[in-house]
Amino acid sequence: MTEEYPVHSRTLMLTIAQIGTLDVAAAEAARRRQQMLTKPPEALGRLEELSVQLAGITGEMRPPLRPCHVLVCAGDHGVAAEGVSAYPSAVTAQMVANFLAGGAAINVLARQVGAEVVVVDAGVAGDLPDAPNLYKMKVRAGTANFAHEPAMSPAEAQAAVEAGIAAARRAIDAGARVLATGDMGIGNTTASAAIAAVLTGRPAAETTGFGTGIGRSGWQKKVAVIEGALELHLPDPYDPLDVLSKIGGLEIGAIAGIVLAAAAARVPVIIDGIISTAGAALAVGLAPAAKSFIIAGHQSMEPGHRALLEHLDLRPLVNLDLRLGEGTGALLALPILDAAVATLNEMATFDEANVSGPAGEIIESDIID
Amino acid sequence: MTEEYPVHSRTLMLTIAQIGTLDVAAAEAARRRQQMLTKPPEALGRLEELSVQLAGITGEMRPPLRPCHVLVCAGDHGVAAEGVSAYPSAVTAQMVANFLAGGAAINVLARQVGAEVVVVDAGVAGDLPDAPNLYKMKVRAGTANFAHEPAMSPAEAQAAVEAGIAAARRAIDAGARVLATGDMGIGNTTASAAIAAVLTGRPAAETTGFGTGIGRSGWQKKVAVIEGALELHLPDPYDPLDVLSKIGGLEIGAIAGIVLAAAAARVPVIIDGIISTAGAALAVGLAPAAKSFIIAGHQSMEPGHRALLEHLDLRPLVNLDLRLGEGTGALLALPILDAAVATLNEMATFDEANVSGPAGEIIESDIID
Repeated sequence: MTEEYPVHSRTLMLTIAQIGTLDVAAAEAARRRQQMLTKPPEALGRLEELSVQLAGITGEMRPPLRPCHVLVCAGDHGVAAEGVSAYPSAVTAQMVANFLAGGAAINVLARQVGAEVVVVDAGVAGDLPDAPNLYKMKVRAGTANFAHEPAMSPAEAQAAVEAGIAAARRAIDAGARVLATGDMGIGNTTASAAIAAVLTGRPAAETTGFGTGIGRSGWQKKVAVIEGALELHLPDPYDPLDVLSKIGGLEIGAIAGIVLAAAAARVPVIIDGIISTAGAALAVGLAPAAKSFIIAGHQSMEPGHRALLEHLDLRPLVNLDLRLGEGTGALLALPILDAAVATLNEMATFDEANVSGPAGEIIESDIID
Repeated sequence: MTEEYPVHSRTLMLTIAQIGTLDVAAAEAARRRQQMLTKPPEALGRLEELSVQLAGITGEMRPPLRPCHVLVCAGDHGVAAEGVSAYPSAVTAQMVANFLAGGAAINVLARQVGAEVVVVDAGVAGDLPDAPNLYKMKVRAGTANFAHEPAMSPAEAQAAVEAGIAAARRAIDAGARVLATGDMGIGNTTASAAIAAVLTGRPAAETTGFGTGIGRSGWQKKVAVIEGALELHLPDPYDPLDVLSKIGGLEIGAIAGIVLAAAAARVPVIIDGIISTAGAALAVGLAPAAKSFIIAGHQSMEPGHRALLEHLDLRPLVNLDLRLGEGTGALLALPILDAAVATLNEMATFDEANVSGPAGEIIESDIID
């Protein structure tokens, strides 16, 4: 059915076309410097890999990691009517108000790590008041109930991705040097578990979790709703916009757009849990080169999150049994990026510190600065 | 052979006697507040557990987590003469100089997270210059080679633990509200792997890793050295000071002392990799109640570290493939403690934010402040 879809819009095509590869020279310079630092080779483990990736993304050995904007993409889900969530849809807009007032977990964590919270309204059902940190980019007031009909039209799916592209550009234009993605949307673990099932080819029972805390019977209903929807719509796993329009969420499309625009701008993007990773997987489906610009912040409790991370071959930085979303797992990883860049740049070399290398030799420094 | 040992010194006995249990009322207050915050129950996962543990340790809902002192305990190892390390023993003192000059990984990470680096000389082979952040508590100038004789005398083992107690007290007297442990000592993964084998009952081949980067044949030699030492000395797994004196390290004894003194003072102590965890396991052997005051910072690449954490039933906060020591894995976890305390204290309750709870009700707040 791919032929029925509108051609990718100019914005989407140009964004995809701008996504390059990692800067090999900068990455290699970082790797060589790591070998000169006063520690056994590779002893800093994933911090070393991260410092090399960040150099490759940005072209800089010491990329600034602030301002960091966490873009919390919000949208409502028609499928919530099926009783797949422990909370009513009204909570989406209530939590957006909480984000804008500074009282949610993401606000607290953002203050801790010196990040900015921006809410992107990609499709909240109700009207939201104007606020300085709210990007009003509503594509439609919540998705349709994909248990019975496609979540949105193909054109709306594309518009949702474009909303994310526009949001990321706005944040980058405002100075952001790192982006983090987050989400809010009652029902969105159902959409994400469905996307995970389609993209990874696993049964819905393996990608579906307990979300905000449904019980065992709620879980069974959720799995059945997803199974029914996949049978009804037959989303094409090789066509991300088809998947998004049939079983996706508006905020999930926006997250996909953020990942694409961050990659195009060579800005590192830290992704959060299952909803963000579903968006990232759609982005990587549209533009495989985007993957190198993504950092997986954490591993959540949702089984579909693990499935999507494996599908993308991304290894999360922390695993703290979170199942909150909002971008919380992404921001918890930010200090690890800070540590990676700081150790690369601030540690003494063997030569500088007069420390013996293996076999007792002082290693000569041939590092390029 | 336990009967041959000197009675525990007064310092050690009093420190052990001061170790209490978690403050149940404070922990319970933290747990109740977590349930009122604008998030699904337990959605912050391990951050919630940590906030409850920290309240239980300190008796405060919002314990200050700075100043945080990382006490890097240094000591040399006679067993290094067996060729069990990729680096010569001289590197221990050279790296201490690097710590004092601010050029090592631990210094960089400490600056990142606002911690202070203190070096505790528990047994470096050479003389060290005076420095403001160096606690001179040398018990002896390196251990004996435990491949052939006990690493130290029983009295020295006790003195090493007491050095750690004194170091922790000095840091706490200087204002530290959190302690982190670290280590430096060429050869000390060999001692720690040997301790892990004794305490967990596993074969040395399962607790021995590649340390700073020995190859396959170096690893085989290391396992053989440990196996020979365990056969020669028959350390008693139920007598921590026996284990320490026969196959331990002076810095490992000091770390045990730090854990005991931190627990006695109700100060949270974040432990690092295999060396710190070997010290912590000895401390818990001496005083099981100390365990509640320990936070496992990270999981290192050393297999004996995993074995010791399982033995202690402690779950590490991060796993970044580090194998450096120094306290690096402990300090990488500190921002997670910050996040735990901040979310508990700064998030809005459902009531305050007018957010609906499950089933759409606004949950009444009955939180005690």
